[in-house]
Amino acid sequence: MRPFTKTIPFADALAMVMRTAKPVARQERVPIAEAGGRVAAADVRAAADVPPFARAAMDGYAVIAADTTGASSDSPRTLVCVGRVFAGQNATGSIGPGCCIEIATGAPMPPGADAVLIVEETSRDGDTIVVRGAVAAGQNIGRQGTDIAAGATVVRRDDVLTPGRIGALAAAGLTHVDVFARPSVAVVSTGDELVAPGRPLAAGQIYEVNRYTIAAVVTRHGATARALASSADDLDRLGASLDAVLTDDVIVFSGGSSVGDRDLVRTLLDERGTMLFHGIAVRPGKPTAFATVNGTPVFGMPGNPTSCLSNAYMLLVPFVRALAHLPPWRPTQVTLPLARRIASVADRHQFYTVKIENGRAQPAFKGSGDITSMADADGYIEIPIGTDALEEGTSVVVTCFE
Amino acid sequence: MRPFTKTIPFADALAMVMRTAKPVARQERVPIAEAGGRVAAADVRAAADVPPFARAAMDGYAVIAADTTGASSDSPRTLVCVGRVFAGQNATGSIGPGCCIEIATGAPMPPGADAVLIVEETSRDGDTIVVRGAVAAGQNIGRQGTDIAAGATVVRRDDVLTPGRIGALAAAGLTHVDVFARPSVAVVSTGDELVAPGRPLAAGQIYEVNRYTIAAVVTRHGATARALASSADDLDRLGASLDAVLTDDVIVFSGGSSVGDRDLVRTLLDERGTMLFHGIAVRPGKPTAFATVNGTPVFGMPGNPTSCLSNAYMLLVPFVRALAHLPPWRPTQVTLPLARRIASVADRHQFYTVKIENGRAQPAFKGSGDITSMADADGYIEIPIGTDALEEGTSVVVTCFE
Repeated sequence: MRPFTKTIPFADALAMVMRTAKPVARQERVPIAEAGGRVAAADVRAAADVPPFARAAMDGYAVIAADTTGASSDSPRTLVCVGRVFAGQNATGSIGPGCCIEIATGAPMPPGADAVLIVEETSRDGDTIVVRGAVAAGQNIGRQGTDIAAGATVVRRDDVLTPGRIGALAAAGLTHVDVFARPSVAVVSTGDELVAPGRPLAAGQIYEVNRYTIAAVVTRHGATARALASSADDLDRLGASLDAVLTDDVIVFSGGSSVGDRDLVRTLLDERGTMLFHGIAVRPGKPTAFATVNGTPVFGMPGNPTSCLSNAYMLLVPFVRALAHLPPWRPTQVTLPLARRIASVADRHQFYTVKIENGRAQPAFKGSGDITSMADADGYIEIPIGTDALEEGTSVVVTCFE
Repeated sequence: MRPFTKTIPFADALAMVMRTAKPVARQERVPIAEAGGRVAAADVRAAADVPPFARAAMDGYAVIAADTTGASSDSPRTLVCVGRVFAGQNATGSIGPGCCIEIATGAPMPPGADAVLIVEETSRDGDTIVVRGAVAAGQNIGRQGTDIAAGATVVRRDDVLTPGRIGALAAAGLTHVDVFARPSVAVVSTGDELVAPGRPLAAGQIYEVNRYTIAAVVTRHGATARALASSADDLDRLGASLDAVLTDDVIVFSGGSSVGDRDLVRTLLDERGTMLFHGIAVRPGKPTAFATVNGTPVFGMPGNPTSCLSNAYMLLVPFVRALAHLPPWRPTQVTLPLARRIASVADRHQFYTVKIENGRAQPAFKGSGDITSMADADGYIEIPIGTDALEEGTSVVVTCFE
């Protein structure tokens, strides 16, 4: 065995991981209906004005504003209605002084009119419109190009395509948009003891967990996961697994990253790549390695499912979001009193899982090997190095899982 | 035209919408690898203990704890190593007093051993293990069933399937999980002026926006969107569109919900359904209708794209999340000073969009008809009824879009 001789602080590990993150350059063109949450790969400009014509912004009457000056409930004026125009129609007629045209929101402004008087300020008797309010020139009109002027930038490179931005692309008449490709994450679980769920277990065997948790995490944060069948604790076969995934944007091994003689992922990364760190002063997740092999970043996550998933949240999520051109994750945080005392390991930064119960943070961490430490938790609190214990009632910040 | 005679407060509108929300009962069985973010439709129990055997929780030596009592760096003890066991192997040998077996994390505990001494507290010379620390019985062992006991509940009905819960399902050997079906949202944009993006515009025409924004919003919140081709401003054709979507869980019309003669969605809902409200004291989004038709909830959203999208965030998101069995949305909120004064309409609750620039909330709202009011914003602030203006520098809470 090869015990850890030193570990690095978590913040240093995260900084080294982030320095290695190269946002993907590959692009793909997708229909705007499928572009929600994707990231624009280039600035998009409008080819024409939106709207392409001046239009009514309210339901009412297209008028010459000067005809309404001084009108009020006490001192109404009258206009003659000479026609009507609905949205989707062309404005054919024009109006002169003393006249108006009934107009619907979105309909093109008739020539001659310079304002829309809202219907709520009028009453009608045949073609006679009683005007009970005044409008100023330009009022209640959407001028041509006010939403988006021809040539204006509709979305910018690196903009996340929110529903509003997808709407702006549609308004500009675009059917497709160029987005950055999702980073591809290869997931390789290692361990002779691992069996795929659904198959029978022999003595000493357990079901594979990490390929599912890692895939679920990275998929949630803009990446695609490619999970390979679990790889045995054999250096040649591990090397073949590595060769098969070197074209992915990032490789995540789980298991084999610790200090035992069969912790061969560590051996493989030592032999084939440049080890950037091995061992983090964090709990759970200490036996974590990070290396590059032919320029491809490779995480060697612990095999313990809670250690693996915790480090996936803390290190892999920021990393894949950077690759995906996504802004840093802003998880929900709530401040609550701690439901009972937690004795801590003072030499490691802890990500300690908790469940929110009755407005308090109830400790939920069982062990690094117990996936229920994560599954039965609503989030985690951080306990810095040097803290022996957190007392019951201490105010803690819970970062919620999603 | 039929002017609004009254509007209801936004909070009342939201409450009426939520009272109508019936969580979907339909279920479907999905592979656990595709279940991230879905909602469990039933409690799931473990068929067997996880782990199915007692195993080492650390790398080191399986020992009889009593053999290590009093051992320290100053007063080491020695044990004889009689074998080794790796993860995935069956524990064949057993140990007696004075003996130990080298053991890897995850390997089954050999008979006779009752603790694992971590490798960091030992040194080795051939088969002689120098013990520099003591362990207690049970230490560094994962007992059979400690993660999940046979018969225990792995996930509960209505649990959102986080990565941790998917991991727990995998640990229990499950390949599939029963989840609630996603609610189906039918989206029907109405208006003679609307043209699908990519096609040429004739005079008076504009591109359709709302079907894309509504679909993007509801997809982000656990629903599926089924967007129909836009429907003309013709009562018979609108009625046919309605008939075609009455089997969906919710129907969203956009356009035709205001006070004009061609606002036929309002007419359709009056004729065919039970109108629950029409007109909300909110800006943007006042001309919004909500009805049920044969028990199916129907939103009549404004045609103005910012009004429509704003109400989709404020009313439709909570509604579809309830249908999808998802917990209320907890968007990111930040408190910032307002970059410049906003004059408000005091008679309506406002959702006023802002952009975050240089640590300040910069007003971004242009007009209800301008989708850039949303596209160029990072979020919104709320301005309650009765507020004439917010002064520059006022501290405001920005709710961020995603």
